[in-house]
Amino acid sequence: MDNSNLESLDRLTNEFSKLPGVGKKTAARYAYYIVTSPKEQAEAFADAILNAKNTIRFCEKCGNFADGKLCPICKTRSEETICVVKEPKDVSAIEKAHSYKGSYHVLHGTINPLQNVAPKDIKIAELLERVVKGQTKEVILATSPDVEGEATAMYIASLIKPYNIKVTRIAQGLATGTQLEFADEVTIARSIQDRREI
Amino acid sequence: MDNSNLESLDRLTNEFSKLPGVGKKTAARYAYYIVTSPKEQAEAFADAILNAKNTIRFCEKCGNFADGKLCPICKTRSEETICVVKEPKDVSAIEKAHSYKGSYHVLHGTINPLQNVAPKDIKIAELLERVVKGQTKEVILATSPDVEGEATAMYIASLIKPYNIKVTRIAQGLATGTQLEFADEVTIARSIQDRREI
Repeated sequence: MDNSNLESLDRLTNEFSKLPGVGKKTAARYAYYIVTSPKEQAEAFADAILNAKNTIRFCEKCGNFADGKLCPICKTRSEETICVVKEPKDVSAIEKAHSYKGSYHVLHGTINPLQNVAPKDIKIAELLERVVKGQTKEVILATSPDVEGEATAMYIASLIKPYNIKVTRIAQGLATGTQLEFADEVTIARSIQDRREI
Repeated sequence: MDNSNLESLDRLTNEFSKLPGVGKKTAARYAYYIVTSPKEQAEAFADAILNAKNTIRFCEKCGNFADGKLCPICKTRSEETICVVKEPKDVSAIEKAHSYKGSYHVLHGTINPLQNVAPKDIKIAELLERVVKGQTKEVILATSPDVEGEATAMYIASLIKPYNIKVTRIAQGLATGTQLEFADEVTIARSIQDRREI
């Protein structure tokens, strides 16, 4: 796009290239789409960006996205069970599975010494406060089963267990629909270790 | 995202999903990025969209993108050679190769009977007018070597040839860096047919 020397097109391409996973070529395609689409379409797009940015904040209770003080989930659900996740998009992912009907707590990160993320940098203190004061009976630790997620889960478990609250970890095993022969060794080992009686 | 019930987030996701090649999951990722980025970043994005849409129009001469009456290319280059392409992004693609220094003509489509695109629906009349009136010595037909591009090129050639203007077609053959064994039969046949002496 350099050659066309159109500053406004270059600027739009540059903005699109900041999106996650979008390179120069894809960004140029998106910019072309905007420039060749009807004016109302471009205006609706720009308005949706500003509107989302201006209305969406974080729920004061759980840290999920909200358009008021509380998110739609905290407004209606009991805190008897709290599912702890890393990011707001993890809430969406679990909600889409339609199998969990309790509350959430979004940490906004996981403990990561290499990137200087300590326990105090994520919303662990807020979780403890909710759990200790409230009527919580179970905390489900649903951080991803990677090094940081695992470490964060273990750390939180060690803080909550003294209060005699049930602490659980999401199950690890083979993903539904996958072939055993293609699964990695660690996953297979976990799926045997965590086997259940039928 | 449905579950979170945040209308503004849903609306932004929906706008992103209109971009070419973007599905619901990718759109949600983009929307999350906007919502979690700094306010200035979101505002710059929205502004870039509106600015591009408001300033960019089509060059009155060649049909390329322009921010004034004429595009940057028509302002400076001779019309002795005109390279005919389907869309403005094809101009960018050729310019990036840095091997062509002439003018362009953007057809804004190719002849396609199945989609009801007739010669009168694309900018062929405008091309003829430029070529016949001007000092054009060569017209390079650079529509893609697919069925529509080929048909459009042949049709335009038949219109221009009577005026004793040189008409050429971009070369077809093996793409640089590809392996002969993986090329399709038609491409190999063309590369032998269009062989050049060295």
